[in-house]
Amino acid sequence: MITSEILEKLRVPADKKIKLKDYETGWAITSELKNAGKEAAKLQAVAVLDQNRAELAEAQQLLYAANSYAVLILLQAMDSAGKDSTIKHVMSGVNPQGCQVFSFKQPSAEELDHDFLWRCSRNLPERGRIGIFNRSYYEEVLIAKVHPEILDAQRLPPGKRGDSFWNARYDDINAFERHLVRNGTLILKFFLHLSKDEQKKRFLERLDNPSKNWKFSPTDIAARAQWTDYQKAYEEALSATSTKWAPWHVIPADQKWAARTLVSDIITSSIRHLDLSYPKPSPETLAQLAEARQTLESE
Amino acid sequence: MITSEILEKLRVPADKKIKLKDYETGWAITSELKNAGKEAAKLQAVAVLDQNRAELAEAQQLLYAANSYAVLILLQAMDSAGKDSTIKHVMSGVNPQGCQVFSFKQPSAEELDHDFLWRCSRNLPERGRIGIFNRSYYEEVLIAKVHPEILDAQRLPPGKRGDSFWNARYDDINAFERHLVRNGTLILKFFLHLSKDEQKKRFLERLDNPSKNWKFSPTDIAARAQWTDYQKAYEEALSATSTKWAPWHVIPADQKWAARTLVSDIITSSIRHLDLSYPKPSPETLAQLAEARQTLESE
Repeated sequence: MITSEILEKLRVPADKKIKLKDYETGWAITSELKNAGKEAAKLQAVAVLDQNRAELAEAQQLLYAANSYAVLILLQAMDSAGKDSTIKHVMSGVNPQGCQVFSFKQPSAEELDHDFLWRCSRNLPERGRIGIFNRSYYEEVLIAKVHPEILDAQRLPPGKRGDSFWNARYDDINAFERHLVRNGTLILKFFLHLSKDEQKKRFLERLDNPSKNWKFSPTDIAARAQWTDYQKAYEEALSATSTKWAPWHVIPADQKWAARTLVSDIITSSIRHLDLSYPKPSPETLAQLAEARQTLESE
Repeated sequence: MITSEILEKLRVPADKKIKLKDYETGWAITSELKNAGKEAAKLQAVAVLDQNRAELAEAQQLLYAANSYAVLILLQAMDSAGKDSTIKHVMSGVNPQGCQVFSFKQPSAEELDHDFLWRCSRNLPERGRIGIFNRSYYEEVLIAKVHPEILDAQRLPPGKRGDSFWNARYDDINAFERHLVRNGTLILKFFLHLSKDEQKKRFLERLDNPSKNWKFSPTDIAARAQWTDYQKAYEEALSATSTKWAPWHVIPADQKWAARTLVSDIITSSIRHLDLSYPKPSPETLAQLAEARQTLESE
C-alpha cells in the first residue's frame, strides 16, 4: 500500500508553484524503494496492483449501493505516457456498470458553441459511479495555451489573451471542481509524468511494431517538438489548479508497472476513505419488507 | 464453446410465434448436457466463462482498434433474473474504455417529451465500442403493455391502443434496429428466462439478507403478481421482434452459471465473426511513419 511519504512526494501542494524537474519520472520515489532495488520494487508493485484490482471492484460495488458519492478521475499526459493502458490495467475487473470512461478528442461544432467546461460537464459521473476522463477540460489550459490559435474557433468575447485570461480559466476550473466536490463528487487528478527519452523509445516502438502503427499520429511528433512549451503549460496548470478539494498527483510514468500501481493505490484508498455504507432500510421500508415476505410465503 | 445445437434452442426464429414454456429455464438445454449431469455441466460452464472473459477482452480490443463496428447488447428480464450480475460477471475484465453500460429507469419529463426510442438512441454505442442496455426501449412494449396507463404520460396522438398500436411499435423497433445494423452495429438481444419458483427463492433471499435488502423494492412484488401478463407480453414481443438482423436469445436463468456462460459465449463468438482487423496504414501513412522515424533518430 502507498505510504504517506510516497503520497506526499506525488501530490502537488495547494498554492505552490512547482517545477516538473523536481518530480520523479522513474520508479525510485523514496530512498526506501531505491534501496530495495528495481526488481524488488516491481515485484511488490505488481502484487499490490493485483490486490487493488479486487479491492477496487469491491469499493466500487459499495459506492454503487451507497449511491451518495460520485468519483471523477482525470488523466492528463503527453502522448504515449500510458493513459489508455493505465485505464485498462487499473480499471479492468471493475463492473462496467459502475464505471464510465470518456475520451475527449477534437471538439465538435456544437461543443465549440458552448463554454469550455460544457462538454465535460454533461459527461460527469452520476452518483454511485466512477467516471474517468481521458483528457479533459484541462486541455483548455494546456494545448490551448501552447496553440492559442485554438481559441479563435471558440469565438470568445474580445479581450487580451495574456496571463489574466489564463488565470481566469484556472479560476473557473477551480470553482467548477469545488462545486462538484461540495455536491458529493470525489475528484482525483493524475498527470502521468514521462521523460522525453522514454517517449522517444515508445514512439520508436510504435513505428517498429506494425500492430501498433495505428496508434501513431504525425501530430505526436509535432507535439514532441514543443516539449518545453508543454512542460511549462503543465507546470503552470498543475500549480494553479491543485487544490485541497481536488489535488493533482504527478505520477512517474517511465515504468508502466509503477504508474499503474500508484494510480490504482490512490484511487482505491481514496474511495475507501469516503464515508460509505450499504443503505439502511427505514422503519417504513422494514414494514414493506415484512409485508412482501408474507405475500410470498402465502402464495 | 457453444454448439450450434444449443444456439438453435436459444435463438427465437424470425417470423414465428413462440411460447416461453417451450424454453428451458434450467441448465439441461440439450440431451448431451443432461446426460453429463449438473455438476459436470457447471464445471464446464465456469471454465468456459473464465476463458471467454480473456477472449472477450481481446475481441473488444480488436473491435476498438478496427473502429468499424459497434456492438449493442440488450438485456431484458423479470426482476431478480440476474441482469446486473450477468453484466458484472461477463463484462468485468473488458477494458471499461471500450464498454458502456446504460440502465434505463423511470423516464424523465424531457424524455417523455420525445418519441419512445429517443432516450435509448442518444446512448447508443459509438463505433469501436460495446454498449450494454440494462433494460431498453423494449420496456415500451412490455411494462407499457401490462400497464397501458403509462402511455398517458407520453401524450401520444389520439387513437386506439389495441393490437395495431402494439404492432406499429414492434414495427418501429424492427426498422430502427435494421437501420443500426445496416450502419455497422451488431445487435444481440437476451431475455433472461427465470422460472416463477426461482424468483420466489431469490426474493426471499433478498429479504433474509440485510446486505441485500436495498435491492428489494415493493414494486417487485406487484410485478410478480402480474407474472402471466408479463410472460404474455414477452412472448408477443420476442415473437414480433426476433429478426434475422437482430435476433432474440432466450437464456435459461435459473442457474446463474449457465446464464452467464451462455451470454458470454454468444457475445464472444458473435464479435469474432465480424470481419475485424487492425487498420492497415495507407502508402501515405507509411511515408509519414518513415518521416517520423527519421525525425526521432536525428534528434
